Amino acid sequence: MKPIQVGLLGIGTVGSGTFNVLRRNQEEIKRRAGRGIEITMVADLDVERARAAVGEGVRVVDDARAVIANPDIDIVVELIGGYGIARQLVLESIAAGKHVVTANKALLAVHGTEIFAAAHAKGVMVAFEAAVAGGIPIIKALREGLTANSIQWIAGIINGTTNFILSEMRDKGLDFAVVLKEAQRLGYAEADPTFDIEGVDAAHKATLMSAIAFGIAVQFDKAHVEGITKLAAQDIRYAEQLGYRIKLLGITKRTPKGIELRVHPSLVPSKRLLANVEGAMNAVVVHGDAVGTTLYYGKGAGSEPTASAVIADLVDITRLHTADAAHRVPHLAFHPDAMSDLQVLPMAEVVTSYYLRLRVADEAGVLAQVTGLLASAGISIDAVLQRESDEVGADGAAAVPQTDLIILTHDTREGTLDDVLAQLQALSTVLAPIIRIRKEELA
Amino acid sequence: MKPIQVGLLGIGTVGSGTFNVLRRNQEEIKRRAGRGIEITMVADLDVERARAAVGEGVRVVDDARAVIANPDIDIVVELIGGYGIARQLVLESIAAGKHVVTANKALLAVHGTEIFAAAHAKGVMVAFEAAVAGGIPIIKALREGLTANSIQWIAGIINGTTNFILSEMRDKGLDFAVVLKEAQRLGYAEADPTFDIEGVDAAHKATLMSAIAFGIAVQFDKAHVEGITKLAAQDIRYAEQLGYRIKLLGITKRTPKGIELRVHPSLVPSKRLLANVEGAMNAVVVHGDAVGTTLYYGKGAGSEPTASAVIADLVDITRLHTADAAHRVPHLAFHPDAMSDLQVLPMAEVVTSYYLRLRVADEAGVLAQVTGLLASAGISIDAVLQRESDEVGADGAAAVPQTDLIILTHDTREGTLDDVLAQLQALSTVLAPIIRIRKEELA
Repeated sequence: MKPIQVGLLGIGTVGSGTFNVLRRNQEEIKRRAGRGIEITMVADLDVERARAAVGEGVRVVDDARAVIANPDIDIVVELIGGYGIARQLVLESIAAGKHVVTANKALLAVHGTEIFAAAHAKGVMVAFEAAVAGGIPIIKALREGLTANSIQWIAGIINGTTNFILSEMRDKGLDFAVVLKEAQRLGYAEADPTFDIEGVDAAHKATLMSAIAFGIAVQFDKAHVEGITKLAAQDIRYAEQLGYRIKLLGITKRTPKGIELRVHPSLVPSKRLLANVEGAMNAVVVHGDAVGTTLYYGKGAGSEPTASAVIADLVDITRLHTADAAHRVPHLAFHPDAMSDLQVLPMAEVVTSYYLRLRVADEAGVLAQVTGLLASAGISIDAVLQRESDEVGADGAAAVPQTDLIILTHDTREGTLDDVLAQLQALSTVLAPIIRIRKEELA
Repeated sequence: MKPIQVGLLGIGTVGSGTFNVLRRNQEEIKRRAGRGIEITMVADLDVERARAAVGEGVRVVDDARAVIANPDIDIVVELIGGYGIARQLVLESIAAGKHVVTANKALLAVHGTEIFAAAHAKGVMVAFEAAVAGGIPIIKALREGLTANSIQWIAGIINGTTNFILSEMRDKGLDFAVVLKEAQRLGYAEADPTFDIEGVDAAHKATLMSAIAFGIAVQFDKAHVEGITKLAAQDIRYAEQLGYRIKLLGITKRTPKGIELRVHPSLVPSKRLLANVEGAMNAVVVHGDAVGTTLYYGKGAGSEPTASAVIADLVDITRLHTADAAHRVPHLAFHPDAMSDLQVLPMAEVVTSYYLRLRVADEAGVLAQVTGLLASAGISIDAVLQRESDEVGADGAAAVPQTDLIILTHDTREGTLDDVLAQLQALSTVLAPIIRIRKEELA
């Protein structure tokens, strides 16, 4: 049988990794897939770079549409990124009857509904294992490995840049800005790191996992997105003393009221495996009603780890593309006519527990005042830690003696906590903006 | 479309879990599979137990062959266990054109070649996700998620009973026999725990993973199998002091000379996630040339976790059974005509590092004598720890002052080490049988 012919749109880091791995392991991949898989055409605006990456024997063009128009190409791999031209080219590939493989989480999290509907109508597959957690086969685990389960929640470290920064902050006791610079120097953070450090990238991935886990449409616009830029080394230290580490988590959860979908820094008990995922590594915890807690760990980015996922998709398509379209694995795990209309909840309706740090006047009655307000709102307290402040007041020398009050709460509705925080902030004994970090027990 | 009809052979713990989960989540599973999946017939020698488990509306018989003979049954789930009647019934199911799902690792590790060949010839699927690591979708990860990779090695905690026992031994400083009793009382170990504690169960699972990872036939008879019954609390403590934990690992590795396939206690660096997998949990680390190190964690046994894997297989078959047989995922990941003839190496050819404990006479020159013998065999030393013995001599009071000498070696050929150990054991200053435990860095 003649090899499956693949056209690559964009040959940067992931593209050349895909080309190299596919060539290096071609024999083994063919023995698995039952058919050869070859990249026969590459489109990149930088034709010279593309030529250097693939050598002779592969057609290199600067026009992506020439790949899509080539009738010999069975599968188009989109590695351009972004929402603009990538969206257009993916839709055109589908219209031309090509299967599509993409690592583009941003595109699918925002335009997934349109793209999957087009693919379904045309009877082609859009595969995207590489879009979430790089080389970890988490999409496959969710869509196929855990089909028996009513999935209850997912919590993942799904952005390597921020996990590297948080690991360094903890290890070295440094502040965010210092570590970011170091991460940029080492290549763990991009020159413009906004999408990573503000949580946007993680939210794209969480959006995709949420859709697959619960059978809802991709709804990035409903996700709560919060990054790590405001985290202080101090809170990482206090959390440690209380038995927790702070991780940027992508969380999605099924509740009686609807779906939670949120990305933010979270305290995680130090003894959990997830808390011990360090550096640029990724890990996703999935809790299903039958299987209980499972965890998937590996490299979430990089040339060959991401290529591993792209090629797994190519093999899946090679294995399945002759199968009846109705019997393939549905794009979002559930059949399009059997999706759920569960709503994504606003943050005020989220129920979780919290780490609070209050800079307060070190005087009698303050603790009673603070805990009293929490109690009157029905928020119960799990632990309190009181520390001398190691900072001085804003005027150079503290006007009044100050202390840090750290409180861990039990589960509460976020809207309720917001109200109490506003009251606490208004107290004359509360001397600085209250720090609030969510806490997930992941039990 | 009418539901896929499933017949269950044997309804013990896993069988009733499968029945319950399939019923509880039937709507959600149907939305994923595109078709209902129903257990319509159950065979069990204990008809009353079976009836109690499934209630009315399901046909219950005491004769497994009545299930196989039923033309309405699409898939037979074999949950009887063992190599005897289970083998016969699986082969008969295949001959009758039924797809088969089984959790029977022993059967497949020993008779897999015969069974998969029969299934291939008949054009039916034999699915066995539940046979390795319970609810963790590790078979799917290996066969589908990591197809891009030349897999280098796998190391897994794949027996919950022994991991529970080792965790307890470490936590409480207790010896094996004491903890085994406790494990039996708590239901973590069976009345006859031989298959678990002697490493046989783990070796069955490692054999299956080895075949899938490297495209070789299942060869349980070539596996090196060693259990945990001889482990002393003392060695767990010494390992801890050196920065390691002792786990029973199933290991399979690709080397230039052939395939390593072995189950034995291993020192693992404490900082590895795998070392922190505690209690009855399972975890498998897979290292691929493209993806690097990935890890999969979850419950390796139990009613509903195992049912989760059984049902995932039912959904896979439901999705794929109308597909061209040539395009399905091959039973052992590689197409039957593209298997490898790589040989499983004898243990003497295995290269790894070691923990050695020598009870020696506490006199001048002994350390030099021991390390001299190791050096002359070309075995280099990574660390040495010398401890006062806390035990007395065999005759009630030590005849000579004794000490424990603990040595960590660098990588060496096991045959070479065996020779040196024989020489060391013959020294008059070595007072007791030398303890040797293998060590895996998993880097």
